Amino acid sequence: MISPQATKILTDGTSIDMQQLRVQLKRFIMQTAQFTDQEAELLVASVQIITAKKGTFLLKEGQVCQHNYLLVQGCVREFQYKNGEEKTTTIYTEGQSIESLISYQNHTPARHSWECLEDCILTTSSRADTERLNKMVPRTQEVCREKSEEQLGTYQAHMADYMASTPEERYLHIVQNRPDLLDRVPQYYLASYIGVSPETLSRIRARLKAKGRKVKASL
Amino acid sequence: MISPQATKILTDGTSIDMQQLRVQLKRFIMQTAQFTDQEAELLVASVQIITAKKGTFLLKEGQVCQHNYLLVQGCVREFQYKNGEEKTTTIYTEGQSIESLISYQNHTPARHSWECLEDCILTTSSRADTERLNKMVPRTQEVCREKSEEQLGTYQAHMADYMASTPEERYLHIVQNRPDLLDRVPQYYLASYIGVSPETLSRIRARLKAKGRKVKASL
Repeated sequence: MISPQATKILTDGTSIDMQQLRVQLKRFIMQTAQFTDQEAELLVASVQIITAKKGTFLLKEGQVCQHNYLLVQGCVREFQYKNGEEKTTTIYTEGQSIESLISYQNHTPARHSWECLEDCILTTSSRADTERLNKMVPRTQEVCREKSEEQLGTYQAHMADYMASTPEERYLHIVQNRPDLLDRVPQYYLASYIGVSPETLSRIRARLKAKGRKVKASL
Repeated sequence: MISPQATKILTDGTSIDMQQLRVQLKRFIMQTAQFTDQEAELLVASVQIITAKKGTFLLKEGQVCQHNYLLVQGCVREFQYKNGEEKTTTIYTEGQSIESLISYQNHTPARHSWECLEDCILTTSSRADTERLNKMVPRTQEVCREKSEEQLGTYQAHMADYMASTPEERYLHIVQNRPDLLDRVPQYYLASYIGVSPETLSRIRARLKAKGRKVKASL
């Protein structure tokens, strides 16, 4: 059974129901990996949970990444500076891991930043936490490696799709697969994410809207 | 000691020195992963080696990927059809693994093809081969998983760099980091790989050449 914990009162006066959150986390852990009920219970009871207000930077370009995160609630963007401009390269939402593997593994400065676009709730683990969890539930390491292999396949496919598609196709992919981003993420970040200027994104949206009207009129 | 094997005569009359090849492979295996001398010896003696002529397809879009490869010699491009055009998404050279993880793991049709751009020598492993090698050298599985984690980090960084860069910057990245591709890969594939038409790549090259002349003249 999830151990009951008091509601956590945050500095801004809001509160989160920690017990409900841990139930939600346990469900998530058991859905995504082959842990037993007991293993998931142990992990959930031991994991660090943090909250971060909108605008918080979880990592800044140039810092060495010391923590991995799992985004329980909220939205985080990854971006890097290039020729004086911010380029958004990933947008994380609920259930996604936020990791900067090269910086974390090799202790090298990260080449990107992570900024919370909404108030966020995350699990966080440092190297020491990870070692502790691995000792407590030895199968964690194996499961994480299996997940890495899966993720690698997803990255391969995602990268190839991105390279082979036009900005309009990338926008349509978001509309079809991650429609919540349209409301949650400012247009200029979305534009950067699909590789165009905000003006070009406006033109893409107008063109798609006109197409939609034509399709409707011909029915 | 690497077991001596006869020179392999290929159907086109050329030959490869299998013993030299296995020495080269063993060196590669020991450089890239923490295998003992004995483990590397066993792996090299058991691995399947194939040759494939320029123009051979190792995989065709729509087929289920049944083999993973390690490219020992040669050059292979990965591409997919999009709106009737071929889009080159990866160019593999010596020492790189060629894997289609989602298709291989989930038995689903691959969404890309692999075409040899040069005569190639590759190691190849089916599921059965992989199981056999894992049984013979149990640490293979662990090493492969560690490599997957490393590769995942590399993919993360590569994907972010690609998204954040202009086609000219992508071309310069090739010039600086993989200059051999400039001679080995036809211009229209390179153009597709950096996300532009062959005409745009010609303009990029002309611009960079003019810049180079200016820098030289001002020295």
